[in-house]
Amino acid sequence: MAKVMAVNAGSSSLKFQLFEMPEETVITSGVVERIGQEMGSFTIKYNGEKKVMEQPVPDHKVAVDLLLEALVSLHIVNQLSEISAVGHRIVQGGPYFNDSAIVDDDVVAKVEELAELAPLHNPAHLVGYRAFKEALPNAGEVFTFDTAFHQSMDEERYLYPLPYEYYTDLKVRKYGAHGTSHKYVSEQLIQLLGNPKHSRVIVCHLGNGASLSAVQDGKCVDTSMGFTPLAGVMMGGRCGSVDPSIMPYLCKKLNKTPDEILDIYNHESGMKGVSGISSDSRDIENALFNKDGKSTPEQIDRALKTSLLYARIVSKYIGAYYTELGGCDAIAFTAGVGENAAYLRRLIIDNCSRALSVFLDEEENNRRVDGNHLISNEFSKIEVYVIPTNEEVMIARDTVRLLNIR
Amino acid sequence: MAKVMAVNAGSSSLKFQLFEMPEETVITSGVVERIGQEMGSFTIKYNGEKKVMEQPVPDHKVAVDLLLEALVSLHIVNQLSEISAVGHRIVQGGPYFNDSAIVDDDVVAKVEELAELAPLHNPAHLVGYRAFKEALPNAGEVFTFDTAFHQSMDEERYLYPLPYEYYTDLKVRKYGAHGTSHKYVSEQLIQLLGNPKHSRVIVCHLGNGASLSAVQDGKCVDTSMGFTPLAGVMMGGRCGSVDPSIMPYLCKKLNKTPDEILDIYNHESGMKGVSGISSDSRDIENALFNKDGKSTPEQIDRALKTSLLYARIVSKYIGAYYTELGGCDAIAFTAGVGENAAYLRRLIIDNCSRALSVFLDEEENNRRVDGNHLISNEFSKIEVYVIPTNEEVMIARDTVRLLNIR
Repeated sequence: MAKVMAVNAGSSSLKFQLFEMPEETVITSGVVERIGQEMGSFTIKYNGEKKVMEQPVPDHKVAVDLLLEALVSLHIVNQLSEISAVGHRIVQGGPYFNDSAIVDDDVVAKVEELAELAPLHNPAHLVGYRAFKEALPNAGEVFTFDTAFHQSMDEERYLYPLPYEYYTDLKVRKYGAHGTSHKYVSEQLIQLLGNPKHSRVIVCHLGNGASLSAVQDGKCVDTSMGFTPLAGVMMGGRCGSVDPSIMPYLCKKLNKTPDEILDIYNHESGMKGVSGISSDSRDIENALFNKDGKSTPEQIDRALKTSLLYARIVSKYIGAYYTELGGCDAIAFTAGVGENAAYLRRLIIDNCSRALSVFLDEEENNRRVDGNHLISNEFSKIEVYVIPTNEEVMIARDTVRLLNIR
Repeated sequence: MAKVMAVNAGSSSLKFQLFEMPEETVITSGVVERIGQEMGSFTIKYNGEKKVMEQPVPDHKVAVDLLLEALVSLHIVNQLSEISAVGHRIVQGGPYFNDSAIVDDDVVAKVEELAELAPLHNPAHLVGYRAFKEALPNAGEVFTFDTAFHQSMDEERYLYPLPYEYYTDLKVRKYGAHGTSHKYVSEQLIQLLGNPKHSRVIVCHLGNGASLSAVQDGKCVDTSMGFTPLAGVMMGGRCGSVDPSIMPYLCKKLNKTPDEILDIYNHESGMKGVSGISSDSRDIENALFNKDGKSTPEQIDRALKTSLLYARIVSKYIGAYYTELGGCDAIAFTAGVGENAAYLRRLIIDNCSRALSVFLDEEENNRRVDGNHLISNEFSKIEVYVIPTNEEVMIARDTVRLLNIR
């Protein structure tokens, strides 16, 4: 038995889960938010209770100390040395990492180098890593990369039709994202299929960010995110892939810089942009079905456009990946939207039903279930599941595996 | 019997074909090139002969006069009044035209307004139109729009996941392109299927520009080009759709403006960019198969990457459209690459074979045939054809139909 901490450090937040391994029991979890702002907050869940403390958290070092002190003061651990290892989520591993890695100077240098491709994420991850390393000098440290699972893509999937030297000299290629989730969910899905020797599955990770992956025999063949997590399908606030000519056109019409348009593409587009309501699919659903009786006809119409557009775009990727895989055994929906928005799952699968002979069970699709859940019906040639994602447990598993913790 | 001229006026060129209608016989065809440059050229084909004249052509009016004088002096017509009507190709008809239109002041005003969306094309078309109108004041005039065939797309196909006011106020939506070709080829294809009441076909217009369309019962359901003809699949020199984040990244790395990057996307990308050889698929094919014995290993490798990437991207669209259409009865290849590059057709269809049960007849695919040509084998569930496109005859047909010429 060993205690392993899984950490996801953002620019102003730090999420954590402490696991008992190899049982994969969550001992405690929580988040430190608004790091560096005037007033921060620290939330920790333990023994079915949730504590929230409001206090200034000037930097990640303070956040880590706060969290570690709480572990001792709440008697979650007797001493910090019980924590054998810390696994950190890293958004961008570039072409260097096709698996998680034990942290050494070379690994840190590569993550630093790749900050150029993930300026909001990689530097924050390293700040979190250094804070833990200082506080727990004897714990093992592992990095788990969001891009690693997609490194099995071949050139005809990851190259862009751009001047070749942008790839060789500027690293412009498809890296994908959400890889830890795609790996976890595809493993679950293949297990649900009975671990066949050959399998072809499609994972729809639909959260605030959203991406699909095509997975053959457990290896990622293709994925919808690209050089950055903006590409691919429509998301909560992100547009996904649009005609590249639109950016210079908007720069001129709106008198904005490319970075300003990029910001609109990343935050004011997607469900939020089309609906004018929200980037949260729950708000779109409420407006569409007039759940609070306050939707205007215009809002219902815009919520409908949003839902139909979203489902159409996702279903086109399913069709493309079905073709790439040479058929498909199962499709999984995961993440916030994928796990909860039954009406969107219905629209997406309906778009594919006739061509791919995939059919939902209406009742199962609408039923809320904890854990993995079959939602296709007996006539469907492709099994469809809802599978709650769990990136943290993947980080803990990789940490245990690489450090050979027993 | 009536003589109808089909015209395609570009910024520095003017292509024409004179038809005898309704027989659709081509009486003469040709092109005036390098209009406005120091030395222009005028090529005309008639009675199996081709004449090329080099002379300065300062503007489109001169080009039109040159061409009309040649018709008389070569005794192709006895007098210009024999030409009943002129049909003009117009690249961008925006949301206004779902069919060709008889030209009036309102039509001209709309084409002028849309110049913003097609700055290289619409103004040139109008210059050509005015030159013909002056020279042939009594002929009927019709505009045939490259976007009209795609106007049957519904919102969930033509909207972008961007702020909705970019659509309502700035006209940012998908318009598609090559519509006249997609219409002609899909009509041919449906005829080859025996004119069934219901049909689902995919047209791959692969030329220097390239686009696919999904056509249900003769109506366009979806197409790969977007707001502009840059979007969609990889082309000769164009990149198609890439992660929108790449442009601002390249602006910074290369110290270029968005318009400069756009120019690279339009002219230095696609086959040309990836291969480093050429934007012409014939050159890629020559390098790949070392046809002149001069290919370096590096060139063969890059030509292979280019071909595999091109085929992969096109085949993903076929998979997406197969799914949208709820299955597919036939696929057509047309335009320069689609009609001639057998090795690319092979790669594209092979990518789809397992999932969609579509198979080529190797011999038929490699055989050169004038006219429409079945290239799938007897086991294929989807018929695959090569169909030479003919945008000019569509312009002449629409001109005759709208003007009710007998």
